[in-house]
Amino acid sequence: MPISKLVTEGLESASWIRRMFEAGIQLKQKVGADQVADLSLGNPVLEPPPEVIERLQQIAADPTPGTHRYMPNAGLPETRQAVASHLAAATGVPYGPDNVVMTVGAGGGLVVLLKSLLDPGDEVVLLAPFFAEYTHYVANFRANSVIVRTDDRFRPDAQAVAEAITPRTRAVIVNSPNNPSGVVYPAEDFAALGAVLDEASERQGRPIALISDEPYREIVYDGVEVPWPVNHYRHSVHVTSFSKDLALPGERIGYVAFNPASEDAVDLWRAMVFGMRALGFVNAPAIQQRLVAGLLDVRVDVAGYAEKRGRLLDALDAGGFDVVRPEGAFYLFPRVPGDGDDVAFVRTCVEERLLVVPGSGFAWPGHVRLAYAVTDRTVDLAVEALARIASA
Amino acid sequence: MPISKLVTEGLESASWIRRMFEAGIQLKQKVGADQVADLSLGNPVLEPPPEVIERLQQIAADPTPGTHRYMPNAGLPETRQAVASHLAAATGVPYGPDNVVMTVGAGGGLVVLLKSLLDPGDEVVLLAPFFAEYTHYVANFRANSVIVRTDDRFRPDAQAVAEAITPRTRAVIVNSPNNPSGVVYPAEDFAALGAVLDEASERQGRPIALISDEPYREIVYDGVEVPWPVNHYRHSVHVTSFSKDLALPGERIGYVAFNPASEDAVDLWRAMVFGMRALGFVNAPAIQQRLVAGLLDVRVDVAGYAEKRGRLLDALDAGGFDVVRPEGAFYLFPRVPGDGDDVAFVRTCVEERLLVVPGSGFAWPGHVRLAYAVTDRTVDLAVEALARIASA
Repeated sequence: MPISKLVTEGLESASWIRRMFEAGIQLKQKVGADQVADLSLGNPVLEPPPEVIERLQQIAADPTPGTHRYMPNAGLPETRQAVASHLAAATGVPYGPDNVVMTVGAGGGLVVLLKSLLDPGDEVVLLAPFFAEYTHYVANFRANSVIVRTDDRFRPDAQAVAEAITPRTRAVIVNSPNNPSGVVYPAEDFAALGAVLDEASERQGRPIALISDEPYREIVYDGVEVPWPVNHYRHSVHVTSFSKDLALPGERIGYVAFNPASEDAVDLWRAMVFGMRALGFVNAPAIQQRLVAGLLDVRVDVAGYAEKRGRLLDALDAGGFDVVRPEGAFYLFPRVPGDGDDVAFVRTCVEERLLVVPGSGFAWPGHVRLAYAVTDRTVDLAVEALARIASA
Repeated sequence: MPISKLVTEGLESASWIRRMFEAGIQLKQKVGADQVADLSLGNPVLEPPPEVIERLQQIAADPTPGTHRYMPNAGLPETRQAVASHLAAATGVPYGPDNVVMTVGAGGGLVVLLKSLLDPGDEVVLLAPFFAEYTHYVANFRANSVIVRTDDRFRPDAQAVAEAITPRTRAVIVNSPNNPSGVVYPAEDFAALGAVLDEASERQGRPIALISDEPYREIVYDGVEVPWPVNHYRHSVHVTSFSKDLALPGERIGYVAFNPASEDAVDLWRAMVFGMRALGFVNAPAIQQRLVAGLLDVRVDVAGYAEKRGRLLDALDAGGFDVVRPEGAFYLFPRVPGDGDDVAFVRTCVEERLLVVPGSGFAWPGHVRLAYAVTDRTVDLAVEALARIASA
């Protein structure tokens, strides 16, 4: 049973990441896991807020028949209504339950959405640096990723996006607060992107979707505002999960919401409902849908993240690293010193018992990603390791 | 944002089913839902066994850090070990945890498995009648479904399968106990299929996968044994869910298991792990993985299903319907009387307040599917409706 060619390519492209993870595992086995500063994973060490655990216990004890049965593929009507009301209050856009599809995390939402939009040979614009899975999500449907670089502050370059658009462009994916840079795109960036996409959609005679992947929306610092793309471009699609703000990444719950005023909003919602079935998701997990419906204003306490971010930024500054001070997510993305060989620098870090991910994994060589959703003890070790690396 | 061509086709092919569902909804609104015998859905009315609810409450209250975090894409090691031990004890095949991938239901498992196996233009043999989603699962990857009819008892025709195999054939999907016929394929059928596939694999120089979709394995009657395909053919892949035997269909938990002795078992497992990421599933829901690990020998009480099956078979016999007496699942698949127009017959049933699914939806016109995972009251109504229909 030989495996598919596309999957073979995917496995090969990921093989160096696997080697890096294996080096990390070997290191932990050799010196002890508690001696290694593992900043390589976006897996929050925070536990879910108490409201989540309390509500989960209520659902587990709920004797109402049908609690665990099938439901409409788009999700429980009451959950979709709650999400729509929440979004409407936040954005001023009159979302309704039939503009929302509950999904198996943001990842599952993006894949079903892309299936709904893409034919083979179509193009999706990605703004580097970006979450590496996006290229696999697009490749599932034999469509092509077109990579456009952000500027030297990791902010979108609307003119570069305009130049990358072709008659095959069907969507642009943005991710703010960004993984791996942590940068929050300001409203003016969405205004500029919206103007470019309006013009291109008009020229093409069919709208280009602006897909906004926002799992880190609630993880922000210094009182920064995260703009809503739908307020700047009509054909915006909002995709998110509860993995980060409720610290439930293993439970796989998120949603996709279409602007009711966008063209084809009804058809796209129907296409996603079909895609939930055709891709075997069927529906987002029932327990999680019941859980999040009443918790849309609850989030983890980001004060702990803010402190870890501050300590790591101080350590990077002290070591003379060049780093953009990001306002969101739980990532820092410093430039690597010297010749800019990020993979070689990651090996140096491993020698100093610090695990980070090379920027090459995010289509942005010359940098490394530090993920600080970790314990204070891990931050202690990382600060020490950065000092050793800087002075070497 | 116009939708993809493939999804447009999928929506069109499903439109008559939607019309039928809408007719059912209208009927319920008109005469009251409690006056309609809805046998159209495979959504078990049974609640999960008490052990499930008890364990779910323990997990919800479990304060262990990391209970809801990300995990390896293949699933929790302890859950995979439990599944492997369970399968090894049942089959005599030495499954290990690295032969198992926990999935988002059997549907999610089938789709990730097909992604791992298929290139565009490849072929997958389906034995009609079959669960209609299979064709969409295959079409996701631009591969083609090749439909082979079973015999007049709904049992596989190994010779017909042999004749349908081409150099592009990558897999055969079997589903026993079967949806929609309820038939359990006996061991001799798997022996015959195995011989055909051995010969074809040898001739092609690469193995053809026998994908066995078994969500109804534990829902059987009259002490029938459900054979294990892996005991009859080396390149068998076991796919199942806990939707029916633990009555948890909304929670989306299942698994795929590769025979450790099959060629490419290690590569295929790796390909599926990649596919879990690339298709956005990431991992099966964490709570459900913890739940099923200790409940692999627990199942719903099928005595209630057996009684409903008996009453409906009596009603069909009394009405002169021609029906195979099936030994599994919770479906009956009688021939429609008269000219065999199943869609017209379904309309007649709607008039008598009985909702069933036409065989055309399972690539088998001339029959209708009755799903009896319903309340006793619904069976009462269905028995009365069948009597009225038979005497009309």
